Amino acid sequence: VVTTDTLTDQVDFQLGQCRPCRAGRKALAVNLSDLAAMAAQPLAAFVSLVIPRDAHESLPRELFDGIVALAEQFRIAIAGGDTNSWNGPLVISVTALGTTTERGPLRRNGARPGDAILATGTFGGSILGHHFDFTPRVAEALQLHQRYELHAGIDVSDGLALDLGHVCQESGCGALVQLDQVPLAEAAYQLSQTSGRSPLDHALGDGEDFELLLAVPPAEAAAILRDQPIGVPVTRIGQFIDQPGLWSLADGMRKPLPATGYQH
Amino acid sequence: VVTTDTLTDQVDFQLGQCRPCRAGRKALAVNLSDLAAMAAQPLAAFVSLVIPRDAHESLPRELFDGIVALAEQFRIAIAGGDTNSWNGPLVISVTALGTTTERGPLRRNGARPGDAILATGTFGGSILGHHFDFTPRVAEALQLHQRYELHAGIDVSDGLALDLGHVCQESGCGALVQLDQVPLAEAAYQLSQTSGRSPLDHALGDGEDFELLLAVPPAEAAAILRDQPIGVPVTRIGQFIDQPGLWSLADGMRKPLPATGYQH
Repeated sequence: VVTTDTLTDQVDFQLGQCRPCRAGRKALAVNLSDLAAMAAQPLAAFVSLVIPRDAHESLPRELFDGIVALAEQFRIAIAGGDTNSWNGPLVISVTALGTTTERGPLRRNGARPGDAILATGTFGGSILGHHFDFTPRVAEALQLHQRYELHAGIDVSDGLALDLGHVCQESGCGALVQLDQVPLAEAAYQLSQTSGRSPLDHALGDGEDFELLLAVPPAEAAAILRDQPIGVPVTRIGQFIDQPGLWSLADGMRKPLPATGYQH
Repeated sequence: VVTTDTLTDQVDFQLGQCRPCRAGRKALAVNLSDLAAMAAQPLAAFVSLVIPRDAHESLPRELFDGIVALAEQFRIAIAGGDTNSWNGPLVISVTALGTTTERGPLRRNGARPGDAILATGTFGGSILGHHFDFTPRVAEALQLHQRYELHAGIDVSDGLALDLGHVCQESGCGALVQLDQVPLAEAAYQLSQTSGRSPLDHALGDGEDFELLLAVPPAEAAAILRDQPIGVPVTRIGQFIDQPGLWSLADGMRKPLPATGYQH
């Protein structure tokens, strides 16, 4: 499997406000998260840089420090790339290759009505640091995919609601989210204190959580929730349903759930 | 084999002065040329775009028209990608996958002293149009690699002299170029009339010819020159030598040859 993701200054990071190694790390990490979403083992990555001509000469080295440290952590090769300079802002484009296991790739289109929606970790407030520091759920996806029957998966980059909607669209079904079950990150509470939005709103729409959403048949889901096998909490946040679209369940009321998240 | 190349507005093309489909075509074509340099059969390409927010809404479509037309010509899939927008100029990043034949990849490091330097096509003046319209020498490389013993190869993107220097460095030898044998493009003569530089200077240093330079043992080189098997002229422009560095031969005099070309 192949994935590619391009990050740009002022959109995915603010180069003036973060150490370049963090931007480099993020550029590789988002691609590893995409491989995790397919339950693929990362093999190698290819890095194209477009460097501003007026950047400090140490910039490429600092970017690569962040990239290489993460590559070593995940035991993958930086196997090639391309370096350019120009009079524009920094662009980092990464393409990553992975191999699937004998179970094949996890896809977005396999969710079936009745499947539980399982989520790893917590959601919301990623802008407070998590959008740089997250760990791609590669090991977690491989473990779950090997031990349990998973029907579909995605990593949450754009937003929990929006990315869940992608699974629904690809699978031809809907989703019902139990709002009181959505695991909220500490950062979601923190951000809520100044944003005027609830922690739940942040969890549903902030994006860049880089956690996994999985469609899992009920018996398997029960086993995962009981076993908690991956060192990161797994939570059931609802189920896939026949009725198309995104729906929320709170206080016994079913309402349409807006597909909040980052629109490219 | 995997190759990746990123093209940017104002460096690799001037978006205000060319139809976007030509920029799109070029972004894929340079990658196919890289696969040709390895004598690899292209399989699939992945295209990441960063689109200026103020661009006409037709820009992505027009870019893809150029990309897809070339992909169809070479029978490869555009198998994925990433689309972003920002307040900067257009960036097109392409990663291409290819497979080598049973002969394995053609590399840069196999040239040996005594090998002939063979070149496909003509050189110089690419800025007059060839840098958009060139045909990646994929079929030509595959044919030559299959029928003859080739020791090394490269495609000329930065400049004939500079790229020949890359082969020398990787192979641990030098090269002696017979200046009167370098095949000059019509565009090299044309450009020479206003540039104040000779057609040969243009041929040696303009770059973006996207022709092949090959290191070929003498007997095989003679056969290729006799057979002319690929529908594009193949010319012997010199030979690889023991003495490191780039050298020119003209009127019986051996002189250092500057490694002219585009410095990234």
